[in-house]
Amino acid sequence: MTETKSSRAFASDNWAGVHPDVLQAIADANIGHAASYGNDEWSGRAVEKVRELVGADCDVFFLFSGTAANVLGLQSIVRPYQSVICAETAHIYTSECGAPEKHTGSKLIPLPSPNGKIQTADIEAQLGYTGNEHHAQPRAVSITQSTEYGTVYSLTEIRKIADVAHKNGMSLHMDGARIFNAAVSLDCTLAATTREAGVDVLSFGGTKNGLIAGEAVVFFDRALAKDFEFRRMQGMQLSSKMRFIAAQFIALLSNDLWKQNAAHANRMAAMLGKGLASVPGVKLTQSVDSNSVFATLPASLIPKLQKEFAFHVWSKPKNEIRLVTSFDTEESDVSRFVELAAKT
Amino acid sequence: MTETKSSRAFASDNWAGVHPDVLQAIADANIGHAASYGNDEWSGRAVEKVRELVGADCDVFFLFSGTAANVLGLQSIVRPYQSVICAETAHIYTSECGAPEKHTGSKLIPLPSPNGKIQTADIEAQLGYTGNEHHAQPRAVSITQSTEYGTVYSLTEIRKIADVAHKNGMSLHMDGARIFNAAVSLDCTLAATTREAGVDVLSFGGTKNGLIAGEAVVFFDRALAKDFEFRRMQGMQLSSKMRFIAAQFIALLSNDLWKQNAAHANRMAAMLGKGLASVPGVKLTQSVDSNSVFATLPASLIPKLQKEFAFHVWSKPKNEIRLVTSFDTEESDVSRFVELAAKT
Amino acid sequence: MTETKSSRAFASDNWAGVHPDVLQAIADANIGHAASYGNDEWSGRAVEKVRELVGADCDVFFLFSGTAANVLGLQSIVRPYQSVICAETAHIYTSECGAPEKHTGSKLIPLPSPNGKIQTADIEAQLGYTGNEHHAQPRAVSITQSTEYGTVYSLTEIRKIADVAHKNGMSLHMDGARIFNAAVSLDCTLAATTREAGVDVLSFGGTKNGLIAGEAVVFFDRALAKDFEFRRMQGMQLSSKMRFIAAQFIALLSNDLWKQNAAHANRMAAMLGKGLASVPGVKLTQSVDSNSVFATLPASLIPKLQKEFAFHVWSKPKNEIRLVTSFDTEESDVSRFVELAAKT
Amino acid sequence: MTETKSSRAFASDNWAGVHPDVLQAIADANIGHAASYGNDEWSGRAVEKVRELVGADCDVFFLFSGTAANVLGLQSIVRPYQSVICAETAHIYTSECGAPEKHTGSKLIPLPSPNGKIQTADIEAQLGYTGNEHHAQPRAVSITQSTEYGTVYSLTEIRKIADVAHKNGMSLHMDGARIFNAAVSLDCTLAATTREAGVDVLSFGGTKNGLIAGEAVVFFDRALAKDFEFRRMQGMQLSSKMRFIAAQFIALLSNDLWKQNAAHANRMAAMLGKGLASVPGVKLTQSVDSNSVFATLPASLIPKLQKEFAFHVWSKPKNEIRLVTSFDTEESDVSRFVELAAKT
Repeated sequence: MTETKSSRAFASDNWAGVHPDVLQAIADANIGHAASYGNDEWSGRAVEKVRELVGADCDVFFLFSGTAANVLGLQSIVRPYQSVICAETAHIYTSECGAPEKHTGSKLIPLPSPNGKIQTADIEAQLGYTGNEHHAQPRAVSITQSTEYGTVYSLTEIRKIADVAHKNGMSLHMDGARIFNAAVSLDCTLAATTREAGVDVLSFGGTKNGLIAGEAVVFFDRALAKDFEFRRMQGMQLSSKMRFIAAQFIALLSNDLWKQNAAHANRMAAMLGKGLASVPGVKLTQSVDSNSVFATLPASLIPKLQKEFAFHVWSKPKNEIRLVTSFDTEESDVSRFVELAAKT
Repeated sequence: MTETKSSRAFASDNWAGVHPDVLQAIADANIGHAASYGNDEWSGRAVEKVRELVGADCDVFFLFSGTAANVLGLQSIVRPYQSVICAETAHIYTSECGAPEKHTGSKLIPLPSPNGKIQTADIEAQLGYTGNEHHAQPRAVSITQSTEYGTVYSLTEIRKIADVAHKNGMSLHMDGARIFNAAVSLDCTLAATTREAGVDVLSFGGTKNGLIAGEAVVFFDRALAKDFEFRRMQGMQLSSKMRFIAAQFIALLSNDLWKQNAAHANRMAAMLGKGLASVPGVKLTQSVDSNSVFATLPASLIPKLQKEFAFHVWSKPKNEIRLVTSFDTEESDVSRFVELAAKT
Repeated sequence: MTETKSSRAFASDNWAGVHPDVLQAIADANIGHAASYGNDEWSGRAVEKVRELVGADCDVFFLFSGTAANVLGLQSIVRPYQSVICAETAHIYTSECGAPEKHTGSKLIPLPSPNGKIQTADIEAQLGYTGNEHHAQPRAVSITQSTEYGTVYSLTEIRKIADVAHKNGMSLHMDGARIFNAAVSLDCTLAATTREAGVDVLSFGGTKNGLIAGEAVVFFDRALAKDFEFRRMQGMQLSSKMRFIAAQFIALLSNDLWKQNAAHANRMAAMLGKGLASVPGVKLTQSVDSNSVFATLPASLIPKLQKEFAFHVWSKPKNEIRLVTSFDTEESDVSRFVELAAKT
Repeated sequence: MTETKSSRAFASDNWAGVHPDVLQAIADANIGHAASYGNDEWSGRAVEKVRELVGADCDVFFLFSGTAANVLGLQSIVRPYQSVICAETAHIYTSECGAPEKHTGSKLIPLPSPNGKIQTADIEAQLGYTGNEHHAQPRAVSITQSTEYGTVYSLTEIRKIADVAHKNGMSLHMDGARIFNAAVSLDCTLAATTREAGVDVLSFGGTKNGLIAGEAVVFFDRALAKDFEFRRMQGMQLSSKMRFIAAQFIALLSNDLWKQNAAHANRMAAMLGKGLASVPGVKLTQSVDSNSVFATLPASLIPKLQKEFAFHVWSKPKNEIRLVTSFDTEESDVSRFVELAAKT
């Protein structure tokens, strides 16, 4: 990525800042000393807030980074001689600089995923060498919800994948960097699209929905959480002043802030998608299910749009761009972008 | 550690909150979108701020965690078949849950360090197997400034260690989680106690001096910085909204805030040490050079003090406690603690 | 694999025993004490034997295992945040239980290889993210000669791949577990199909051509050999009584034994391929370039053949089998197999 | 080590060759094809031979290297955030080039061991941070039998260590690179000094007692053996032609060959120790319990002895040498060495 503009735009939801309520929560937590490393009252309350939304029967650990949530969550499941099945478009496969392989020592097995989703038949096709010592043994399936293409697995799709995973001795990991956008898209609870659909380990992402930096790993299969406090510490993800991560999550998960933020972002993406679809020469390439829009457009249009808006050119050969909306996208941003595209 | 109290106390400088100026800087940086992953203007300015203090000829990378600063800094120096020489009391050796070994794949070689410091003769004693493939080859020396015992290496001591390291093909790493307290203690510049004393790679710690969470790795040996952006990303330490780490550093390194914070903490420790030393039955066990006080005291005193103040029992068999002061310690905290100790 | 038969057959060239000349060489080397860990005279002579065949300007290290030769050779090239491009059918990708990922910490990137070979265009397609810290950086290309499908890269094909690799800052690794069969197939020297074609690091396999256990890593890019003695030791591949691996190689590389063995195996495969191709219902699926034959055949035929001969069913859905010949395959084995296939 | 002489001498028991019976066994196993990777009849028989000597209730895996036996055995016990307690003189700590740290990702904790043995009190002193996420958690104790100093743990000593380990949730690993010499020294069965004394995982070394190359990992705690076939393969230690390792073990473990070899080596060491002890100026520094002798001697003597005999100078500052005997040491070697020492 070579984006250098810093105006409010469509580069990524991590170009957005922090929601004012979240910032206020940090300030409110800044009262004297508090026990470090999560032994403070905010951390306990934040865990309860997560449980209110995904169900009480789980273990919750906060950390700094979404990549770390994925990597350490997977590390809790797989040994180095086991493998992780994922989409060839998965963030863990394409965009974490090999962190999963480095830290778990395991192989990742990419499956075709033209729309960001994997299929159960492709998972099953990887299971031919069970018990054969020459082949890394599939032990986890990882899916992203919402996907890197902004599409959203239906509850039934997740359940089918979970069933195949469980039937074959594998656990289901979900990269939920944008789990809030997915839940809003599905109009379901966070529990419905995670635990109730069969997810065992969840990367629960706060940063892309209005936090400064705050992620969690949620274990619905609590046996896998054993010793996770050690994995987190050795994984360099234990915040000493953890109350400030916890306070952010408390704010996000209170008063439906998570839902308002995600719903707004999704609405802006829908508006953007609709607007672009009506522009001659522009073609949406993925279903706009959550907060991103993928589209091909005339090559000459890209630099013109980039003069005013930062965004990511997904595929140069195809002239395909990715536009991501966030909690602070404004309708005027959307209409201006569409207007520019149409005018040119 | 089983501290559970959260009053302002002496448990650790990471029990303190965030300095108001730092919090304000975060709020000020929250203006619309900014390029992610450090491609924002704050990150560039924060690098320049660091360079103003340690010298311009260096590479600077921000990350979340002090353990990560140590681990990734060392990983830039050593290959897995090489080793790191350090104090047996070093944080990297005792308190990072084996993170250095896990991430670098290397062996750590502990040297005696009764006052937290290592000696050049002990380093040289480890160099007998150079070139012998059966033995991990020493490639780095790591020292902590100020040390885990609150003592401070003199500039001459650092220089001697650096010379031994360099003469033997090793690089000098400094764990500067409390580098500000050390510089204030030595009444020298940050450059003097790092680059000018021969340090090659520095963990530059902000969290313990008033940030929410913010650390940096500074490479004075810039050849070692090659590809560090990949190490940081794969090391799960690349903050997407990095402007907020950068903004914290800018605040800390502006208007001598770093110096005021560290000087205050050091002054409180000196006062506390002096007060305790005058209490019958209490004996200081380490020189109070920076912001911590180590002391033995009558066994029965410990629980009484713990009723009002959280602190760490360093050695149960010896009834030795550790007291750490921070930027927000108040004189009344110190005098109350000494009073309580004297009264009992 | 579930082969359980132990008759002389077509299961693999590692089902064969040891060539009598090699066994004799071991016995001849068993004269009193010799310096351990390769500091013996046999080891020095074996290195010279390798150099006679591949050229003098290289570094040679002996080890136990072919997987280790691949893994440690690659580890000499890539750092964990870099990646290895290989065929999706490569032994390193499919059949080493994730050893490359575990030991190097790196990602392997599989390319399509319907005939066991990779194409330069597919390599180039992986180079779009150079310098982008989110993506593991391609640093090595690995090819297998002869391939896992028994096909053989022409000298021109290797050269083209080497050129693409070198032009893009990558090194070329060759898995030469069956390098002798390839050289015989190409009717060229070992130097021609390795160094002269642009290979930088070679896994030089002895076991499949008549040794008990003996492999080597050969560095044509000698800068990459730096510290390899430490990598080998830490990689658990330094034989204490190394003279016995060296003696085996000396025997294999003397009197053209390597060529005789490989030529015989290739001839047997050609005969087998020709025979099978003439059987109705049997279809060769790969070019028989070296010492293996891939063929589809009627499903009912497989169990009948398995009553007399052990071999590997490559693809159950396709009824595709793999037949491998070795230095000790006899013409009568081949004719009996073809006869059985034809009769049924 | 800089030994370069290759006469029969006292450099190490891995300078010796292979016992003739073992060589014959290899030749006898060289009859046509056999299933690879241990699925042959010799491998099954070799496992039974091991079980005859150490007890039937165990799992046995053969591999190439003693370092690998240690590393992969330990890897079966510890996760990366756990640690291994061992002697500061342990082979795993000093002489495996950091292989344990690299492969397990774990920290090794060295205990004082002036005579090669560790003490239970020192083990217990390491257990103060159980459950504290900042500290790698001790999970294994590793002892060497016989030790690197040629001393031998009594059965009672092992049992006490095993009890402390087990009581604290740790497993006991034994590096048995010279287990045969120890059993002969104790005049006990192999079962007595391993399983019956409380060992959970044993590195069972053949190479130093007359094999070309052959080691085993024996799991008395069979739960730890789960998935070891994958660890071995990924650990690059699965021999394709494993029958030849197995055949070596069958020979060694038949007809008490193991006992004769070890008893002979021990006898030669005793004779050498007794002879040297009577030489003025020579002082034995360790008890001669098995097949090595440690002694200090006048500095000028060392080069004179080295003209005729290769051996290892253990400590240059102390003029301490190590002499190791082997199955093929002859009485004349011993008497000549003592004679030379006395004459000078």
